[in-house]
Amino acid sequence: MSTHPLEEILHPKSIAVVGASDNPASSGYRFTTHQLEYGYKGKIYPVNPKYSEVGELKVYPSLKDIPGPVDYVISCVPAAEVLSMLEDCAQKGVKAVHFFTARFSETGRQEAVELEQEILKRARKWGIRIIGPNCMGLYYPREGISFGYDFPKEPGSVGLAAQTGGGSALFIYAARLRGIRFSKVISYGNAIDFNECDFLEYFAQDPETEIILMYIEGVKEGKRFFKTLRQAASVKPVIIIKAGRGESGTRAIASHTASLTSSMKVWETLVAQAGAISAKNFNEMADLAVFLSFLPPIQGPRVGIAGGGGGPSVLAADECEEAGLDVVPIPPEFRDELKSKGIQIWDWVDNPTDVSILGGSGFTIPDMLQMMAKSENFDLLITLIFDVPFRQEKGMTASLRDQVEAYTKVKKETSKPILVVVEEKSSGLEEHDRWRWRLLGETRTKLIEAGIPIYPTFGRAARAARKLIDYYQRRK
Amino acid sequence: MSTHPLEEILHPKSIAVVGASDNPASSGYRFTTHQLEYGYKGKIYPVNPKYSEVGELKVYPSLKDIPGPVDYVISCVPAAEVLSMLEDCAQKGVKAVHFFTARFSETGRQEAVELEQEILKRARKWGIRIIGPNCMGLYYPREGISFGYDFPKEPGSVGLAAQTGGGSALFIYAARLRGIRFSKVISYGNAIDFNECDFLEYFAQDPETEIILMYIEGVKEGKRFFKTLRQAASVKPVIIIKAGRGESGTRAIASHTASLTSSMKVWETLVAQAGAISAKNFNEMADLAVFLSFLPPIQGPRVGIAGGGGGPSVLAADECEEAGLDVVPIPPEFRDELKSKGIQIWDWVDNPTDVSILGGSGFTIPDMLQMMAKSENFDLLITLIFDVPFRQEKGMTASLRDQVEAYTKVKKETSKPILVVVEEKSSGLEEHDRWRWRLLGETRTKLIEAGIPIYPTFGRAARAARKLIDYYQRRK
Repeated sequence: MSTHPLEEILHPKSIAVVGASDNPASSGYRFTTHQLEYGYKGKIYPVNPKYSEVGELKVYPSLKDIPGPVDYVISCVPAAEVLSMLEDCAQKGVKAVHFFTARFSETGRQEAVELEQEILKRARKWGIRIIGPNCMGLYYPREGISFGYDFPKEPGSVGLAAQTGGGSALFIYAARLRGIRFSKVISYGNAIDFNECDFLEYFAQDPETEIILMYIEGVKEGKRFFKTLRQAASVKPVIIIKAGRGESGTRAIASHTASLTSSMKVWETLVAQAGAISAKNFNEMADLAVFLSFLPPIQGPRVGIAGGGGGPSVLAADECEEAGLDVVPIPPEFRDELKSKGIQIWDWVDNPTDVSILGGSGFTIPDMLQMMAKSENFDLLITLIFDVPFRQEKGMTASLRDQVEAYTKVKKETSKPILVVVEEKSSGLEEHDRWRWRLLGETRTKLIEAGIPIYPTFGRAARAARKLIDYYQRRK
Repeated sequence: MSTHPLEEILHPKSIAVVGASDNPASSGYRFTTHQLEYGYKGKIYPVNPKYSEVGELKVYPSLKDIPGPVDYVISCVPAAEVLSMLEDCAQKGVKAVHFFTARFSETGRQEAVELEQEILKRARKWGIRIIGPNCMGLYYPREGISFGYDFPKEPGSVGLAAQTGGGSALFIYAARLRGIRFSKVISYGNAIDFNECDFLEYFAQDPETEIILMYIEGVKEGKRFFKTLRQAASVKPVIIIKAGRGESGTRAIASHTASLTSSMKVWETLVAQAGAISAKNFNEMADLAVFLSFLPPIQGPRVGIAGGGGGPSVLAADECEEAGLDVVPIPPEFRDELKSKGIQIWDWVDNPTDVSILGGSGFTIPDMLQMMAKSENFDLLITLIFDVPFRQEKGMTASLRDQVEAYTKVKKETSKPILVVVEEKSSGLEEHDRWRWRLLGETRTKLIEAGIPIYPTFGRAARAARKLIDYYQRRK
């Protein structure tokens, strides 16, 4: 197998930021300093005739003034200056340019469309490859390359290629909190040269990437895309968000990355037939990715629900059923076992298991989870962190610690997927400063450290599980 | 109009907690101390032969030993002791008993069902009214009565009657964070005496309650319920969760409050015909209640979406359309106005408005919102807090403050509903301790103070708006 053209481009030995700036609010500053902060090992060359220094780095007046070779250019100059910059790139032997520079075809203006085409034409002539324009480019923690603050410095095995830079950044933050770490994230904008097919193809053969995520507004090469998708999905899971599903989204996309969209129904069918997974939005993408990252394959729809007081457990069962899971009754042998152990509520307890009836019974939620984990009647376990506030920090600390320990033990001993619901709440300032919110944060951190995926609601956990049941069934 | 029987019962001059305890983990302790903490003005009498003092209060060996009259009893004794306690109540002239005591018909056991029936029979004979059994009873902040820690002490105008105590508590916590305050919350469990019809009837005529919320597992009196519902819904909004919608939920309900359930389709049709609003779960209930509490009626489905980078704004438009809203293009006069003001992106900007194209244009998200607010082409505005992290606290503080101020200004000047999306995130321990999460909490608090409802996603904001469009249209 020959090396994918992106492999060399994504491992530059030197990066020049053209349009570098010492104004911290500017992208020219950010793209320069991010590489410093994230520990990029190659050479970084800021370029701007107006400055002599940015973030302790010497600034060069032009690309041509840089002493050594330049592999990769990040373009932060205005669209009007791009053609002359590209000429400098050609002279300098630059291999690839990431155009943060925007205001091309996405404006819908004829002259901007023509400029974009001219850029591509010249780049082809000079053998320069392009990421973008109108995008954030590369986040590659292993190489110390980043386009955002506060992205995790430690690498992972999830790859994302997205036609949105802001959306990618928000997803990296949110997914990080769910325990996801990335091999590479590539924000690729208008995709005039490298497009969705190239990134998909690259991730499919990239040994650093185990799960592929994509956010696509429009497909440039439909036939090639679905062929590539089928190939990629045969070797690793691929989750795709198709944005611009309605009329207005289509309109919005035209002005965002100037992509063409097609009918959603057709799209979803083709994605499923190719063996990939559709997601509606970044939240659902995270819900699916944590499941795939942390858990063994799910074998069927029979869910055991343990935890939650009466009402919440009833609603949990409703949401699981509405998502297409099977909330099966507990088998007769459970009752026999409970009865033989002298558990007074042996005939009453069921699936979902209502925590509020267990008090004083000598039977606990973890006991039920362990029985469900061992039984052939269940394919999947969902439980929750019961955080009805205690009066005292000590009591709540102990309760949450016990729950986390019990779930961690179950997870270690079973080969079935186990999901834990920890509700998100729109905390205000007052709440933020109270110990209980801090405790909940600690609980989430510990669960993730134990390899247990967390979900904000039963509904979202159940819908993710159902999608993956279908996914694994299609693969059989 | 005669006074509703619940009116007197909910305003007791004295409360006895039978089965009071000095063990902080016990319900007997909690029901005693909550009334102290919440500032209940009447007399509180803990009752238990085993103790002499609970939380600085004198404890009486039995109800009969209490010197003054007792209006309201909270029963925390085991089910086996209930009949003798009820006899004491009769002798003492007690008007109502809230049975926290459980393990009756919800266990599915014949003897427990019979005991429950016997309780009702005797209570009727002695003229004692019952809330419950198997429930948390009353939270009534104006009267200083509460069944939970950390419930708001300040009263509001939302009333909730629910067949779940744990669910009610979780809802009170979560809804508080969205800005909701309560007139009364009544957790009513198995409903052997007062049932859903009584509570609905009561809230309909209660001047302290402007919005009625209900969580129902089963309806005791179907015909009366829908008649009462129609009446109640004609004077104030009524939002109802029907739990136990599927097979397993039905099974779970039998063991939770022993209610009978019926087909969901029929249920939802009847609720809509009665002029009320169905909600799937407590999150959706909060989404609807904040809208009704904070905003003027919504007149139609034409939504203006402002805020969010390219990709997120495309997805926001998708989610709004999928919820049944109309993401209309901006009208020609907007473009004329922008052009006349020399805004370079006059022909490019649209609805949804992509914040990432506005930089340097002299045109801002608040500008767009103000135009949409004034235009006859829009019925509803949805915007978001753009929290892509800044490197520095100062910059992010200023950005969030500017956004809140701008949205507050728009809200003050328009008669259209405006919703703001502030994403929830599953923060872990490390995140909790960082300034940016605290800033987001502060932002939520400020928005709520300005009377602007916050939603965690565009999808949830849009679905709430759509349900209320239908609600207001049915009322016309």
